[in-house]
Amino acid sequence: MIDKLIEKIKETDNPTVVGLDPRLEQIPEFIKTEAFEAYGKTPKAVAEAFFRFNKEIIDKIYDLIPAVKPQIAMYEQLGLDGIDCYIKTIEYAKSKDLIIIGDIKRGDIASTAKAYSDGHIGRVLVSENEFEIFKQDFITINPYMGYDSIEPYIDDCEKYDKGLFVLVKTSNPNSAEIQDLISDGKPIYEHVGQLVSKWGTNLIGANGFSKIGAVVGATHKEEARKLRELMPNTFFLVPGYGTQGGTAEDVKPCFNKGGLGAIVNSSRGITAAFLSEKYKHFSEKEFAEASRQAVADMKEDLNKTLKD
Amino acid sequence: MIDKLIEKIKETDNPTVVGLDPRLEQIPEFIKTEAFEAYGKTPKAVAEAFFRFNKEIIDKIYDLIPAVKPQIAMYEQLGLDGIDCYIKTIEYAKSKDLIIIGDIKRGDIASTAKAYSDGHIGRVLVSENEFEIFKQDFITINPYMGYDSIEPYIDDCEKYDKGLFVLVKTSNPNSAEIQDLISDGKPIYEHVGQLVSKWGTNLIGANGFSKIGAVVGATHKEEARKLRELMPNTFFLVPGYGTQGGTAEDVKPCFNKGGLGAIVNSSRGITAAFLSEKYKHFSEKEFAEASRQAVADMKEDLNKTLKD
Repeated sequence: MIDKLIEKIKETDNPTVVGLDPRLEQIPEFIKTEAFEAYGKTPKAVAEAFFRFNKEIIDKIYDLIPAVKPQIAMYEQLGLDGIDCYIKTIEYAKSKDLIIIGDIKRGDIASTAKAYSDGHIGRVLVSENEFEIFKQDFITINPYMGYDSIEPYIDDCEKYDKGLFVLVKTSNPNSAEIQDLISDGKPIYEHVGQLVSKWGTNLIGANGFSKIGAVVGATHKEEARKLRELMPNTFFLVPGYGTQGGTAEDVKPCFNKGGLGAIVNSSRGITAAFLSEKYKHFSEKEFAEASRQAVADMKEDLNKTLKD
Repeated sequence: MIDKLIEKIKETDNPTVVGLDPRLEQIPEFIKTEAFEAYGKTPKAVAEAFFRFNKEIIDKIYDLIPAVKPQIAMYEQLGLDGIDCYIKTIEYAKSKDLIIIGDIKRGDIASTAKAYSDGHIGRVLVSENEFEIFKQDFITINPYMGYDSIEPYIDDCEKYDKGLFVLVKTSNPNSAEIQDLISDGKPIYEHVGQLVSKWGTNLIGANGFSKIGAVVGATHKEEARKLRELMPNTFFLVPGYGTQGGTAEDVKPCFNKGGLGAIVNSSRGITAAFLSEKYKHFSEKEFAEASRQAVADMKEDLNKTLKD
């Protein structure tokens, strides 16, 4: 799947993944109104509004991007209706040949990790029947518990050609609190980076990158440069561009000299473009067109800097 | 809620939480057969079997214990039917006045953490309507991303009288890989312990313990002793007793001199007792009676050592 991701990045000439993290306050009024009329002011109405919103955006941008990254928290908070919407969003995006990076950040010990892995990227066995439940291509994972909390996912990555992005250095302001503590002369995130690199050694694909990738925030330019050097065969998922303050210059060190090696996420910057000053010439009804324009602008911004 | 938990521990004289982590291979054959007959060999059948299994165990043990800890991974892997079973299990256990520790180990940045918190321990707002979705009393949380990934939960703990258990030192074999790295003369888990203690400072209840607790594995006796000293106002959730090898002697350092300060988890050791050599005089139909006996034996084992 890492090779398919890289091929799709080359094909679209766009190392961008669009985060599908819907928030009720960023859904156009007419969609909310119709959902509330049909289902009342309920979690079901919100889930229906989220799905319609996601679907219209996917319809308008799928040809420009290699992948989408739904953030499960936004759906999970709505309970059953939300999980239903999460799965439907994944299925719809896959029907448009988009690669799915499920932003689930799970982390638990061995047998429990196996249950998460079975459900999210593997297969659930019921007697002799096999079921694919969440159908993601990649998922994000938290490494704090160590290798036995990662191993079951690695097995499924191998067996079903899936991939992981393991948190190494995150983009949020307090990421330094634990990740930047210095041990043996280097920060914890470098130790974690080396572990992630080691865990992925046997899963390197035709393009030179492993199925086991890393999350490296766009808000830490110097750290990214160092990690890129330390982990030449590890693909990076890069959050923090746009809304969180990361620029094309900031994400550049995440890429190698050939312009490969990373995929940059933008969520609200794309999906809520219609609410921003820059795209206010799009009406609310044209929210998905605004997203398409925002994708095109992000692609241009990244490529201008990366190919410089 | 931390005060209610402590009161219930005193009332039952039992610092035990029973983990509800059902696995298909540990469900009695007659329950599986009936579920497969009703729903085929499907995730729905598994979820139905899990719920019946949980319900019968809860019915037989609720008067002996203060709390249960469902592990969401076991349910989530089944998709919608599993999440439905997870919520029904929580509601049923609450109807028996049990405290719910949701073992979800979520961790994400600020606005995403807020979505998890709203859904799991807070309220989801849809216009002027408020919804309680997962209805847990406590949840487990991963600290790798730092304070801004914890803050939204802390706000909800205050507002809705809920609680957290933040991973500090976990019970699994590879927990040392990151958690034991030495920084500034002490292991990472001690740094995390100090952070957890600081985060909980303003939420200390009548019994002297904060709503912000810590997960400290039963498999690390010396580490637990040190953490108990460092974090006198932090309640510990202690996994690893029984199946993972932890003994009553191992968990003793998690408690203070008054015999308070921790709650010890056992999952398979209780719920799959009917499959073990020790309880084989119970028939498969008596699986819940076997669980009741296992709870009574664990209580005796803990109290003998703790009150020694």
